[in-house]
Amino acid sequence: VGSPKLGRTHPITEDELVERIRGSLRGGIEARDLTDDAASVELPDGGSVVVSVDSVVEGIHFDLALCGPDDVGWKALMGALSDLAAMGARPLGALVALCVPATSGGGSLSLGVMEGIAQAAGASACPVVGGDVSSARDVMVAVTVLGTVEGGQVVRRAGARPGDALFVTGPCGASAAGLRTLRRHAGAGGELAVAYRRPVARLAEGLVARTSGVHAMIDVSDGLALDLHRLADASAVGFELDVVPVAPGATQTEALGGGEDYELVMSCAPDATALLVEGFVAAGLRQPIRMGTVVDDARTRQLSGEPVARLGWQHNLG
Amino acid sequence: VGSPKLGRTHPITEDELVERIRGSLRGGIEARDLTDDAASVELPDGGSVVVSVDSVVEGIHFDLALCGPDDVGWKALMGALSDLAAMGARPLGALVALCVPATSGGGSLSLGVMEGIAQAAGASACPVVGGDVSSARDVMVAVTVLGTVEGGQVVRRAGARPGDALFVTGPCGASAAGLRTLRRHAGAGGELAVAYRRPVARLAEGLVARTSGVHAMIDVSDGLALDLHRLADASAVGFELDVVPVAPGATQTEALGGGEDYELVMSCAPDATALLVEGFVAAGLRQPIRMGTVVDDARTRQLSGEPVARLGWQHNLG
Repeated sequence: VGSPKLGRTHPITEDELVERIRGSLRGGIEARDLTDDAASVELPDGGSVVVSVDSVVEGIHFDLALCGPDDVGWKALMGALSDLAAMGARPLGALVALCVPATSGGGSLSLGVMEGIAQAAGASACPVVGGDVSSARDVMVAVTVLGTVEGGQVVRRAGARPGDALFVTGPCGASAAGLRTLRRHAGAGGELAVAYRRPVARLAEGLVARTSGVHAMIDVSDGLALDLHRLADASAVGFELDVVPVAPGATQTEALGGGEDYELVMSCAPDATALLVEGFVAAGLRQPIRMGTVVDDARTRQLSGEPVARLGWQHNLG
Repeated sequence: VGSPKLGRTHPITEDELVERIRGSLRGGIEARDLTDDAASVELPDGGSVVVSVDSVVEGIHFDLALCGPDDVGWKALMGALSDLAAMGARPLGALVALCVPATSGGGSLSLGVMEGIAQAAGASACPVVGGDVSSARDVMVAVTVLGTVEGGQVVRRAGARPGDALFVTGPCGASAAGLRTLRRHAGAGGELAVAYRRPVARLAEGLVARTSGVHAMIDVSDGLALDLHRLADASAVGFELDVVPVAPGATQTEALGGGEDYELVMSCAPDATALLVEGFVAAGLRQPIRMGTVVDDARTRQLSGEPVARLGWQHNLG
């Protein structure tokens, strides 16, 4: 992460901006956990709650020509739930802040979005407990989710150790391939389009990973490569990959840089890998795929000996 | 609250839409507390957390010609904290979802917003514990706040009983008067402009009200009249007001319909009013102002014998 200066005219990336915000908050108030997708908040009675917020914006994260309002709602909640999955938390509830244009159709658009949210909430056993509706030029959905680790500890991005095995819960790139398909032929069906329109947070997988004691975890929201780099950055380590599992119908570039796959990347102690895999099998989940190894040198970020670019989705914020 | 039909072409109000959303969620999944600004989420270990989300959007809630990005950040967090105040909760932490345009200046705009959020967080002892940054056409800030009632019960909008005394924590309309002043002369100073740019959530007042046992509470976010109606709707009661406290420099219309005052309206048992007022005084807070009485007939909503219109800010969602 670089050190951008205020007033510069070239764009600042999301990661750079988050780093600057973290610095500015550190000065004034307590700011914790800002490197993780979700934060753990201690409660006065000794418990804790895991909480995360995720927003999706029309024209940036979705295009209503390629998916329905219900898909937008589904994706908004699943994206937020994926942050809980990446911490190993079980969802307790969601809050929805919805902005829709004050034009004819805004009301039915809102109801469509909420229908998709209700479907995703039902599929994830995560009740919608509150919300806020507002007008805006573009459709925007910000979803906050609360979760629990039932007295355990959250799994963070930081924590990967040299020698750890890197696993991923499944092949990547199907969502990006689905978007490519839909852009070519709006209304296309098939598995890839469904992967794009209706991704699923890996909540059960995250739970097994946490209780199996993985050292670090992140969800593939912005791209396998970028999210691997983020896990490695937070852990101050490097990685050497032997394999990148590519979803059928997707390209390797889509697998590395596509994002919205919501598979989980796990860093697991070398002597605990059998336990991890057994845990997945015992829970009836697909076996995780071993991708490579964590290494000590943080500059080493390789796939089959070649450097891995930070491929993935980042907002450029001018 | 009416029963709008899908597909109609005239605008649907925020309250109507929230009612419809509530209905649609009720069908599929558990949806609780959607009449309150904040929700109470039960935790598996027996505790609970109070949580609320509030979003502000450029061109709808604020105009960057009339206030700075730091004011936008301050107001976004205070607006969310006011929802906790209205439940009698103490803040534990905040999450910020920030959307800014990907144009030149978006980075410094983000930092300005975050600076105001950090200031409000410091003033409220509410640490920022997480967030999300994204690009968008318009600036949008969605703030989620978590709070606790320390083993007690939250105060809701529902609960006002016939015979209760209605109190408000202070005079209203200063924020709207400040906006009027700023529109006439951008950059104007003075108390009214500060009331608009830097409102303060009544957290200490909400805490005293809760521990004093008030029956119902709401914050004046959208307009004293509208928020009184909402409290009365939720409680299925009416009200008779003798007085509407108007802030110096504001008009009665601004006091009734202006919003963003963040004063708290409390419904208090007639034999507990002395205790309530003493609690405020003992805590070093301004004495609450008695406005009138709750009545049994839900159709009676009067000020000095005249009907009170639902004056206030509501999004019209087409």
